[in-house]
Amino acid sequence: MRIALDAMGTDRHPAVEVEGGVAALRELSDDFGIVFVGDAARIETHLARWPEAPRDRIEVVHAQDAILPGESAAAAVRRKPNSSIVVGLALHKERRVDAFISAGSTGAVMAASLFALRRLPGVDRPAIATILPTAAQPLLLIDAGANVDSKPAHLVQFARLGSIYVEDAWRRPNPRVGLLNIGEEPEKGDECTVEAHRLLRAATDLNFVGNIEGRDIIRGPCDVLVADGFVGNVLLKFYESVTAFFHGLVGEKLNGLVPQRVLDGVFDGFDYAEYGGAPLLGVNGITIICHGGSPPRAIRNAIRVARQAIETRMLGHIERVIGPAADTAAV
Amino acid sequence: MRIALDAMGTDRHPAVEVEGGVAALRELSDDFGIVFVGDAARIETHLARWPEAPRDRIEVVHAQDAILPGESAAAAVRRKPNSSIVVGLALHKERRVDAFISAGSTGAVMAASLFALRRLPGVDRPAIATILPTAAQPLLLIDAGANVDSKPAHLVQFARLGSIYVEDAWRRPNPRVGLLNIGEEPEKGDECTVEAHRLLRAATDLNFVGNIEGRDIIRGPCDVLVADGFVGNVLLKFYESVTAFFHGLVGEKLNGLVPQRVLDGVFDGFDYAEYGGAPLLGVNGITIICHGGSPPRAIRNAIRVARQAIETRMLGHIERVIGPAADTAAV
Repeated sequence: MRIALDAMGTDRHPAVEVEGGVAALRELSDDFGIVFVGDAARIETHLARWPEAPRDRIEVVHAQDAILPGESAAAAVRRKPNSSIVVGLALHKERRVDAFISAGSTGAVMAASLFALRRLPGVDRPAIATILPTAAQPLLLIDAGANVDSKPAHLVQFARLGSIYVEDAWRRPNPRVGLLNIGEEPEKGDECTVEAHRLLRAATDLNFVGNIEGRDIIRGPCDVLVADGFVGNVLLKFYESVTAFFHGLVGEKLNGLVPQRVLDGVFDGFDYAEYGGAPLLGVNGITIICHGGSPPRAIRNAIRVARQAIETRMLGHIERVIGPAADTAAV
Repeated sequence: MRIALDAMGTDRHPAVEVEGGVAALRELSDDFGIVFVGDAARIETHLARWPEAPRDRIEVVHAQDAILPGESAAAAVRRKPNSSIVVGLALHKERRVDAFISAGSTGAVMAASLFALRRLPGVDRPAIATILPTAAQPLLLIDAGANVDSKPAHLVQFARLGSIYVEDAWRRPNPRVGLLNIGEEPEKGDECTVEAHRLLRAATDLNFVGNIEGRDIIRGPCDVLVADGFVGNVLLKFYESVTAFFHGLVGEKLNGLVPQRVLDGVFDGFDYAEYGGAPLLGVNGITIICHGGSPPRAIRNAIRVARQAIETRMLGHIERVIGPAADTAAV
């Protein structure tokens, strides 16, 4: 099993990628390897700082370009065939690696993944699936920002993609699917969610538990929370920032009263780095998207996420459930 | 100046309404009165518990019905002409009171307000304006849930309504208007926000500062945050619940280590009860909507919000800016 890791994506590349990758290699079995993609000289310099790195399981593939945060995603992917994102995904397309991980521009990773890997049959719109920590178990939010102006049928596909992922990767059988909405009753919502509610209720293969309001999310009332990528993205980014804000506020206001270690412990389980990356579900491959601000720990955890998707044969499962053959049976 | 207060709206009605109302009467001047609307006998029982209440500034208007939380809003308003919400708004329509406050069903208060008060000229869709506390000054979120499937031109109206309110009620000149979106660049977003961005940029009467991402909100980067009511409602409800959750979590995890008073102090300024009610902007009257779970303090603060809107002659200001005569000049 081999994973391509874009070494140029984080704010502190390639140091963070190399450190996270080496940590993953040391904890994973001998048949697991990493292909670092990016500026080979810089990657080697950083690798040299980790003498304990198992070099026989490491490959470095040079990519002379990098796509920068400000660039228009689709244009950058076309214009920069030698960027680490495009080169890494080409390796995955050719199945020389089993997954691709990047903390680079989300838009560029999505665009390049769609272009290189294509969609799985039966999937209209791949979607980003992200963990949201709750007071109970974490839930999976899908879509966290890959799509806007989704149609009701797309939300149903997100529900299926999310259910498969939660079932396989998180080993939760018969996952509860909730629809993010502004009221509990079926008739509440905008045009899209009212119709999506109807379709989800009719989908006998899904364990649909109804609408979930903003105030309910933190209780963890479902395993898969379905949303259009607009509201999903606002929610995700707000949640991350407000968690960090309250963590900082508590630290500042209680400074000196409680040891920092204890204060940090309060927010255990609410740190996004703990959960690693977010899979782009619905493409014919395994793409994991990480934060630009990821620390090495998040990269290591993203590798774990990728490994799980490979080992549980996620792509085959999605094809069986969503592919054209399944379509008539399922709806 | 007199305000009608729906006495049947909170989860602990009419105790909460009576306590909050009496508190407001005691701190406001002698020319200020409250009309409690609801079950007169129960209101009187609760008033009797406050011997210090200035009875000459209190009126009780009986309304034998109440609209219940589960009821379909529009139907309930039609079916229950003797409900506290409909009776209270009739008083305001006849200008026997200067404002109406309710912690009852938001949908019913909106529907009844539209029906009784009508929209101001030039306003297509009234919107709910709510305070969001931030690390800096609080900002005004509009729309927090009155409308779904808003058109770009509606978002521009929300921007104007919110700007007027922040200028007058919060005394912030030239308020900065942000558009809730999923990226900073003008071309980011869904169909509606891309076009709304263009319109807001072209509106020379507004101080438009651009798109605001979910992660930026907590910094307080604008005074007025414009959004469709779907995402606005999800955001507001999530924010309220996550604040309460972290407050509880900190209390639980640091129990015994820090006095509760100090822990509570960390979340000072993030308690919604501090801010009272949310005005429904754009109707020809002053309707303030409160949480069902409001404590007396929130009711007292909602009365303060109503009083401010009356004293600053908000309705006249909105008419001057948004009315048909203004329309050609402003756009």
